[in-house]
Amino acid sequence: MVLIGHRFFRVMDNINEIVEKLLQFRDERDWKQFHNPKDLALAINVEAGELLELFLWKKPEEVKKEKVSEELADIFAFAFLLADKYDFDVKEIVIEKLMKNADKYPIEKSKGNSKKYNEL
Amino acid sequence: MVLIGHRFFRVMDNINEIVEKLLQFRDERDWKQFHNPKDLALAINVEAGELLELFLWKKPEEVKKEKVSEELADIFAFAFLLADKYDFDVKEIVIEKLMKNADKYPIEKSKGNSKKYNEL
Amino acid sequence: MVLIGHRFFRVMDNINEIVEKLLQFRDERDWKQFHNPKDLALAINVEAGELLELFLWKKPEEVKKEKVSEELADIFAFAFLLADKYDFDVKEIVIEKLMKNADKYPIEKSKGNSKKYNEL
Amino acid sequence: MVLIGHRFFRVMDNINEIVEKLLQFRDERDWKQFHNPKDLALAINVEAGELLELFLWKKPEEVKKEKVSEELADIFAFAFLLADKYDFDVKEIVIEKLMKNADKYPIEKSKGNSKKYNEL
Repeated sequence: MVLIGHRFFRVMDNINEIVEKLLQFRDERDWKQFHNPKDLALAINVEAGELLELFLWKKPEEVKKEKVSEELADIFAFAFLLADKYDFDVKEIVIEKLMKNADKYPIEKSKGNSKKYNEL
Repeated sequence: MVLIGHRFFRVMDNINEIVEKLLQFRDERDWKQFHNPKDLALAINVEAGELLELFLWKKPEEVKKEKVSEELADIFAFAFLLADKYDFDVKEIVIEKLMKNADKYPIEKSKGNSKKYNEL
Repeated sequence: MVLIGHRFFRVMDNINEIVEKLLQFRDERDWKQFHNPKDLALAINVEAGELLELFLWKKPEEVKKEKVSEELADIFAFAFLLADKYDFDVKEIVIEKLMKNADKYPIEKSKGNSKKYNEL
Repeated sequence: MVLIGHRFFRVMDNINEIVEKLLQFRDERDWKQFHNPKDLALAINVEAGELLELFLWKKPEEVKKEKVSEELADIFAFAFLLADKYDFDVKEIVIEKLMKNADKYPIEKSKGNSKKYNEL
């Protein structure tokens, strides 16, 4: 809900919209029974592998954007479903992790440097 | 922009907010140079593997929610960065893929059935 | 067994030797109970992700050989354990798959070409 | 070479036989140019994802052995090719890693326990 002037307006945020559509798709097919967290984590890995295959033996610029969008969409779909399973707020967990990473990768040490935090 | 009454209001959607913070984090560290699409696809796979490790040898309910949130956040982070790299609208690509999947998995054939579309 | 002259000699092949050591390691720790095929497939993915991480943001030549050997060893370990679980002969399945691939990738079509068989 | 009686016999070990066939297959197609270590690590991940897909949403016993053998064969193929690229002796690196793991997972602590070494 957003207060504008004297009235409240419901602003459906776009992540909620996506998740709603994903759950509807799942429930129409009665697939909730298969979607335990472990298999959702598997699904993310399977889709991540399919995304990776697009880049295999190739330079980044040789890869077809259209196909990337499809495989990336699958990863997002299962990632949103797993987040929903645990009642995670996606914005919240990403920003929390970002703050943790800011500690691991202080700007002065990591600037222009691709090393892992334990090698900085 | 959202039109409410006679006025326009800017409603920053939450995906844009996340991406903005991710880009800021990246640019403060001058990491754009490393973030080509191929390595971002690798990063998603690396993080997906770390998520999977939490479930290894375990039943879904034995897994720590806190850790899942961190690994899932990393996957989202790189997935959003890859989407940004190609100027994908995340909501759009997920919903487009969902429509494709609706064709591959018609409700009557796939209801309560975990088979892959080419085995239905 | 190998027949040489008039006598048979037992030649322990090196894959059997590796598998024997892996099973001994597993059984000393009473880990057979965790090693169902699904979790072994997960383990291969987890280790594959750790191997991949060594190459993340890097050129191939920047990667430390020593670390590659460790991560690759882990992949082999779980791959051999999964093969053992199904009583696969590793040499046999690799060569059988190679013959299948020879049909998918005929030399004249695939020479010097990194395309997938369905795009040749 | 194996000394038997007064004569030496060349015993081609089975890993060398596999690798020889893999290299022949690769070279007939002039694919060495694509097989840099980074892409071979990607290939292992892609194939590991395809193996994992066989188990997705399924109990281990529902999975088709025949298909597992094919996907596992692909993982072995690229793992052997990567090992060859670095001149690793597969038996040696697996056994060395096993000794490292024996330190990380002492029998008394890890017996019947699926925890990771840093949680033991």
